[in-house]
Amino acid sequence: MKRLTLILTLLLSSLFTFAQESGRQHRIVMQLSSGDTLVHKNLMKQFKNMLEAAPTAKIEVVCHGPGMDMLMSDRSIVAAKVKEFASKGVRFLACDNTIRERNLDPALVIPEAGHVKAGIIHIVERQEDGWSYIKAGF
Amino acid sequence: MKRLTLILTLLLSSLFTFAQESGRQHRIVMQLSSGDTLVHKNLMKQFKNMLEAAPTAKIEVVCHGPGMDMLMSDRSIVAAKVKEFASKGVRFLACDNTIRERNLDPALVIPEAGHVKAGIIHIVERQEDGWSYIKAGF
Amino acid sequence: MKRLTLILTLLLSSLFTFAQESGRQHRIVMQLSSGDTLVHKNLMKQFKNMLEAAPTAKIEVVCHGPGMDMLMSDRSIVAAKVKEFASKGVRFLACDNTIRERNLDPALVIPEAGHVKAGIIHIVERQEDGWSYIKAGF
Repeated sequence: MKRLTLILTLLLSSLFTFAQESGRQHRIVMQLSSGDTLVHKNLMKQFKNMLEAAPTAKIEVVCHGPGMDMLMSDRSIVAAKVKEFASKGVRFLACDNTIRERNLDPALVIPEAGHVKAGIIHIVERQEDGWSYIKAGF
Repeated sequence: MKRLTLILTLLLSSLFTFAQESGRQHRIVMQLSSGDTLVHKNLMKQFKNMLEAAPTAKIEVVCHGPGMDMLMSDRSIVAAKVKEFASKGVRFLACDNTIRERNLDPALVIPEAGHVKAGIIHIVERQEDGWSYIKAGF
Repeated sequence: MKRLTLILTLLLSSLFTFAQESGRQHRIVMQLSSGDTLVHKNLMKQFKNMLEAAPTAKIEVVCHGPGMDMLMSDRSIVAAKVKEFASKGVRFLACDNTIRERNLDPALVIPEAGHVKAGIIHIVERQEDGWSYIKAGF
């Protein structure tokens, strides 16, 4: 019985420590499905604020549907900022289903962006791995 | 001490296996609160892509507020698609609070749809049970 | 081996009990980033429905970006309702980054509202602590 108590205590305390220490490692998967350029500009401000408040946060931004516009070098109004935040560790991910369905030219996708096959399924898998989900947009 | 190590190892490895095996069973609760018919059409494309990328995924779509329009047979522009995806296992759920507050005729709700009392609380409970959450719309 | 089985059984059953009992304590963090007054009015209806369906639910609403308008006493069209729901336990949180960036007058923030430094990071931390996330808006 003593051993049981010990094991449960150790296990629970390690879980709580992991979950609750204040300097914890945030992992954030954001979904951008909006083509609204105001949303894109606002998102850049949010990256700045997030990285200031939590400099070690892992941030991924999955762009799909009209949201892919933010990653297209021929139309994005925040291309320079995307490159800047990519260099600071924010991971931008283009949805290949969207590229195919919208007949976008893959060569025009900002080269700093990574790719996922199906945007929503990637977001789902991140949540299954314990990442927090934030839907971008107003 | 050996036993403790064994137990922790077994426990952690089973947790990791459950969470990380690539063929894992996705459970996805989507929230549709938009009455925008472009959102409704886009959602149908997303179902197609999701089921292609993850054929065994469990998908629920909770429709509330203006989003209930997608499930009303007198105004939905995707009624045929809703029936098609319902037959493929996507579960559409109508919010009874919305039906009452918007004075919608319950007899006009697409019969393939299920019902929940309070849409948001259902979404919350699914998240508590480990489902991933996706907000539909742009 | 018997002890192992016992420990695993106890542990799993306590986890399942915690997660699945029907009268469970909901903890919900909502994100309001929209300045649309229709969204603000709709949100008030949602609070009413949520508290009816789950009277003991803990609800927080993080207002940032244009969503801060709902907490500004000089422009909110639901200020009276915000105060009413605050008195019923709904916790409204103003984003200090937004106040600074939008040059909002902190003295005009509805006094019932609390404050967070960075709205999105607060939402992320709540999810890490097991709260369910709901994005407000259509």
